[in-house]
Amino acid sequence: MRRHPSNPVITPEMVRPSADGYRVRGVFNPGACRFGDEIVLLLRVSEDCEAGEGEAAVPMADLTEHGGRPGILRVSLDDPEVRLKDTRGIVYRGVDYLSTLSHIRLARSKDGVSFRVEDTPFLFPSRPREIFGVEDARVTRIGSICYINYTCVSPDGWATALASTTDFTGVDDHGIIFPPQNKDVSIFPERIGGSYFALHRPNNEGFGKPSIWCSESPDLVHWGNHRCVLRPRDTVWEEMKIGGGGPSLRIPAGWLQIYHAKGRDQIYSLFAVLLDAAEPWKVVSRGKKPLLVPETGYETTGFFPGVVFTNGVLPDGRDRLRIYYGACDESVCLAETTVDEVLATLG
Amino acid sequence: MRRHPSNPVITPEMVRPSADGYRVRGVFNPGACRFGDEIVLLLRVSEDCEAGEGEAAVPMADLTEHGGRPGILRVSLDDPEVRLKDTRGIVYRGVDYLSTLSHIRLARSKDGVSFRVEDTPFLFPSRPREIFGVEDARVTRIGSICYINYTCVSPDGWATALASTTDFTGVDDHGIIFPPQNKDVSIFPERIGGSYFALHRPNNEGFGKPSIWCSESPDLVHWGNHRCVLRPRDTVWEEMKIGGGGPSLRIPAGWLQIYHAKGRDQIYSLFAVLLDAAEPWKVVSRGKKPLLVPETGYETTGFFPGVVFTNGVLPDGRDRLRIYYGACDESVCLAETTVDEVLATLG
Repeated sequence: MRRHPSNPVITPEMVRPSADGYRVRGVFNPGACRFGDEIVLLLRVSEDCEAGEGEAAVPMADLTEHGGRPGILRVSLDDPEVRLKDTRGIVYRGVDYLSTLSHIRLARSKDGVSFRVEDTPFLFPSRPREIFGVEDARVTRIGSICYINYTCVSPDGWATALASTTDFTGVDDHGIIFPPQNKDVSIFPERIGGSYFALHRPNNEGFGKPSIWCSESPDLVHWGNHRCVLRPRDTVWEEMKIGGGGPSLRIPAGWLQIYHAKGRDQIYSLFAVLLDAAEPWKVVSRGKKPLLVPETGYETTGFFPGVVFTNGVLPDGRDRLRIYYGACDESVCLAETTVDEVLATLG
Repeated sequence: MRRHPSNPVITPEMVRPSADGYRVRGVFNPGACRFGDEIVLLLRVSEDCEAGEGEAAVPMADLTEHGGRPGILRVSLDDPEVRLKDTRGIVYRGVDYLSTLSHIRLARSKDGVSFRVEDTPFLFPSRPREIFGVEDARVTRIGSICYINYTCVSPDGWATALASTTDFTGVDDHGIIFPPQNKDVSIFPERIGGSYFALHRPNNEGFGKPSIWCSESPDLVHWGNHRCVLRPRDTVWEEMKIGGGGPSLRIPAGWLQIYHAKGRDQIYSLFAVLLDAAEPWKVVSRGKKPLLVPETGYETTGFFPGVVFTNGVLPDGRDRLRIYYGACDESVCLAETTVDEVLATLG
């Protein structure tokens, strides 16, 4: 794994805020896709608002207009209807508001290193189901259609919704495909034995630890036959939970998946797992050592220190891989490796 | 609502244990279905084991044989590998075992009041996904097929699986249809606008309170388009959570659903909600007052005091309803009412 010398390749300073009064706090966890002669990243952009003296100001999705647009809730700290919650937000008139709000923004590049970030959001919270944010997109291209799944957060929980596009301009909505609490969904890029498959990460609260599951679908919208595939190991790297990354890659030996693990001291790292080609709910072999752990300054210091997290991996030529990843919930980075190097970590 | 004078209609004494050394602690939360000229109940039977002096004994599903069968784990309390957990079970060599294990047992009746309970389990834990138990079956009859969904509990969490039968002898497995944490699933008995629908209850841990959702399916196996339908109200009856009951009933005004609510002091009660006939994810009106609250001795005193819980409601003649319900996680009861009486509780 070679970290690109231009890392981080995208930083908050490169992103124009969604609205006056908004501040970009992080640009991270990019979905990735080849489209035309470009590499398109679907960035998660998190924003907060600058508050004046004696007031609180939080970003909110304003759903009063069709499509949703960025709004700001400004309240006086003297208002008896305002209650501060730790750093996560405020409660105003009994309703929760988070201190940061995420949306999905596009960035485009010819060389995969130097990106132009679009000026306006691609997916901004626009429905009650995502009023607390739209996060961590994954893109799976099947034929001419790019399927985009993302985490939608609302007072009803965090769930995974599906959208699709053929041009990265218009977007069709396919609703919530995995109900709460479920995230880290990645759709396989082709049918296997006649069915579509996805990895996902339900929250088995109170039983075991959050694990990676595999499910089957006739149409990408309706999912069933849910099976637990990979559980966290009791190691320093995985002891809290694990979750899937970008779409699994077909290699001769099976399906290669690069997943994240949350371990001791809330450190996030990346591991590989090889799944069976015909029965992707079966593990062929699993990383004995991490592929990537937080080591550089931009990985160890930032908004949420000690995080490397990927949801976008692209093949680049015969055997090379580009791993786009978020560092510290703050910036977008790139690491380059080969399939053979990844396979060498497996046990 | 008239409680039947024969209540409870089934008690633990009427149920033969699944194996020598097993004790039936509860028979409750029945799914219900008309089949031939009989009413069939799918009872949840919970069992524990009698322990000798200085030992712990817990029921366990023995999966070493195909199909799974009742086993007992007996360990000495002096064994350093044994650790007692509160009342829920033990940890032995790092593996959890619960103090009670549930399976599904059939009971049959011509009059719906006097039941013959079968001597052996109908669905006993037989797979890793249900090693901690098989609980709270719902039956939806569609044509000649009875679809049975049930909660399967394992170290990976509690989820909902689907089985089907045409004769209550052979059973086909359709896998997990709602991944963890998800229970209180009820499938509507006919297609609506070309799709099947189900209510379900994901666990939106940390966000809001557990609520009733509605989902859509082309085939009963794969589910999508998940929408939150009904959230708990901040009342003495509903302040903790709510969850769906048996399959919704088609009445002229829409779909009638009788759900349970868990309120203050962990009291469970029953409420009604009317859902739109064509768009069952839309609420037409909702119970202003409960249909049934724990009041009688068998509802207020027992294994888990203060619980009435239904997952089986059967129409009986033109306008009458039979509500089978579990009392205190211990016995099966029957209440009789009419559609008009239920509608009169709606606001």
